Amino acid sequence: MSDPGPASSVTALLTEIAGVGADTGRGGYTRPVYSPAETDLRDWFVENARRRSLDVETDRNGIIWAWWNPARAPLENAVVTGSHLDSVPGGGAFDGPLGVASALVAVDQLNWSGVQPDRPLAIAVFPEEEGSRFGIACLGSRLLTGQLSPEAAARLSDSEGTTFAEAAAKHGLDPGRLGHDEEALRRIGVFVELHVEQGRGLADLDRAVAIGTSILGHGRWRLTVSGEGNHAGTTLMEDRHDPMVAAGAIITAVRDIARAHPVARATVGRLIPTPGGTNVIASRVDLWLDVRHPDDAVTTAIVEAVRQRAEVVAAAEGCTAELAQESLSPTVHFDDGLNARLSASLPGAPLLATGAGHDAGVLSAVRPSAMLFVRNPTGVSHSPSEHVEAADAEVGAHALTAVLSDLLTTPGR
Amino acid sequence: MSDPGPASSVTALLTEIAGVGADTGRGGYTRPVYSPAETDLRDWFVENARRRSLDVETDRNGIIWAWWNPARAPLENAVVTGSHLDSVPGGGAFDGPLGVASALVAVDQLNWSGVQPDRPLAIAVFPEEEGSRFGIACLGSRLLTGQLSPEAAARLSDSEGTTFAEAAAKHGLDPGRLGHDEEALRRIGVFVELHVEQGRGLADLDRAVAIGTSILGHGRWRLTVSGEGNHAGTTLMEDRHDPMVAAGAIITAVRDIARAHPVARATVGRLIPTPGGTNVIASRVDLWLDVRHPDDAVTTAIVEAVRQRAEVVAAAEGCTAELAQESLSPTVHFDDGLNARLSASLPGAPLLATGAGHDAGVLSAVRPSAMLFVRNPTGVSHSPSEHVEAADAEVGAHALTAVLSDLLTTPGR
Repeated sequence: MSDPGPASSVTALLTEIAGVGADTGRGGYTRPVYSPAETDLRDWFVENARRRSLDVETDRNGIIWAWWNPARAPLENAVVTGSHLDSVPGGGAFDGPLGVASALVAVDQLNWSGVQPDRPLAIAVFPEEEGSRFGIACLGSRLLTGQLSPEAAARLSDSEGTTFAEAAAKHGLDPGRLGHDEEALRRIGVFVELHVEQGRGLADLDRAVAIGTSILGHGRWRLTVSGEGNHAGTTLMEDRHDPMVAAGAIITAVRDIARAHPVARATVGRLIPTPGGTNVIASRVDLWLDVRHPDDAVTTAIVEAVRQRAEVVAAAEGCTAELAQESLSPTVHFDDGLNARLSASLPGAPLLATGAGHDAGVLSAVRPSAMLFVRNPTGVSHSPSEHVEAADAEVGAHALTAVLSDLLTTPGR
Repeated sequence: MSDPGPASSVTALLTEIAGVGADTGRGGYTRPVYSPAETDLRDWFVENARRRSLDVETDRNGIIWAWWNPARAPLENAVVTGSHLDSVPGGGAFDGPLGVASALVAVDQLNWSGVQPDRPLAIAVFPEEEGSRFGIACLGSRLLTGQLSPEAAARLSDSEGTTFAEAAAKHGLDPGRLGHDEEALRRIGVFVELHVEQGRGLADLDRAVAIGTSILGHGRWRLTVSGEGNHAGTTLMEDRHDPMVAAGAIITAVRDIARAHPVARATVGRLIPTPGGTNVIASRVDLWLDVRHPDDAVTTAIVEAVRQRAEVVAAAEGCTAELAQESLSPTVHFDDGLNARLSASLPGAPLLATGAGHDAGVLSAVRPSAMLFVRNPTGVSHSPSEHVEAADAEVGAHALTAVLSDLLTTPGR
């Protein structure tokens, strides 16, 4: 057993990366996949894994695997934990890194406790979980499981026009070898992801850790409103075909349509006018629509209502509106049998659903998967206000250790 | 008299810069002030001026002056022409460069025609006419005339956070010496700016060149809507304080308010959500309002109506809205006496008002100023669709030559 070194607490580990990708404009962190910030975090993870004598490899989809396998068991039916290191623009410190740091601490605790595992353990770090750079969330796990074709992934481009293929190639991947990886999947027995809670559930219950039950179905659509670019001073109001005016009406319609469906959530958080000058009537406005509902038929109905409303609103301005789906994930119910084992390891832990997508949700389509949530006292997420108390972070890591220890040493899934 | 070289037509000159700052994403040109593209254009102008043996200098506000003064007259009471080289994002090829290229061609024609000027001529190239980088249009002429304080200018920052002081210093200016320049102003007798028309006036009249009569009063305001950033999946619709929803309603309100005032124009062409992620409820949305009306009291009333409506709309979403003026230019009526001289030089030329701001409008506060407009068959401006036929461009340059020749050789203003 190797010396875990001084950084054997979650907070100590997160402190090591507190300066990486800090966003002085938005606050919080901006760590898009394969940016210098996210690459630094990957290096940090690899260094920490190697310090713990884990065997590190990066697979052909850019997922990092760090193996703890003291029994030298065959690399199959492993217990896998982990999360992601990329962030939304101006995100919090814990969304992603908490799961990765907790996994490293769990390995330390398993080492110290002298657990003799029957199966290998891996920590997996997934790229582009947020989809904040290339537009599709859980890009790494979708490629791994074949839920996204390598051709579609390669074509995705970021706001600078860099394609995913180019970014992947620049970071050592072969764009021709992206996609469904049965060999990598065969090694996974179960997957358990620890994540900061993205709501107030645990805070309201006054508890530190919960077991996840389900992930709300959700999808992303890009709405392109096209009009006629012109001069803001010389073009009479009645001569305009202003896509920004249509976009304004569409944004309020999105909210009204969502409110008409209980439990539904619909959001426009990103909008880009082209050309985007103060004294220029835009020629085009792109806006992105995020819709979530437990019943996938309702999600479809909401998006269809938005599409119809957008077309009517755009036509009234002499503009056109086009809606394109960028991703769609049905509602995920985590594995009951696996969750029963988690509940046995964490007696009395509350069960919580979430509205946020995760790699665990993607993997649950092919392997029994589960999630642990750690209390976020503000309930705020994708914002610098996201928070985890240091004590709760350590309770979370201990809970993960207990779950992993049980899965590694008891027969069954 | 020097050899003007091969590029003695407006089209030939503009062809030299046809590749500079081309915007493959938006189409057209993106040449913000002090960007590599605009700096290349400045170098191109200086080279062309020197090739014509003009004396070139850059003043302490970054305005380039190229002097044609064969009589070696004192540098005062000069006839000044010129325009700008910066562009809006995705602007046309003619907005700015047409006036600069026509001025160079006019110098060639004055040389060839053997005109013996009684007073000096200067071509002036003004920085940041569009305000597309630092937010204030006609920044150079406003600094020169003292209509903008050097302290306020120095503090302006672009979307990357670079201040105008930093950009100016990087391009050889002393930020401590920006501002009102009485010495430079004393040298100006009259100012005549040739510009592509930004509407369909000349196309409708089937004429190539017009004389400007007035510039619609206009201003820019920044509206900041602040709410609460949060996760798009985990935050219930009823728990949101979403500034994007408020912004949507404000955009449609701006249009409705403008429509209620005949001749008024109000535009939101630029909008930036923070953080701007698809799966993130924005914490803040900044949008920019451009308002124009011949009666400055109406402009004020429109902006006040927008402010009140924005506050109400924002409050309904649990958000706040703040409006800050970035610039305000009253309606400009060009000098009647100077325009009478232009009409005498260009018999039968139609008279046209414009809704677009220009450095000639700023200078008219302190010196007799005038404008010539050249036909734009599409009537579209601040867009790649802006156009000038090659024949019209040469007619425009000849008209400018006639006007300058008259002003240089006849006593009076």
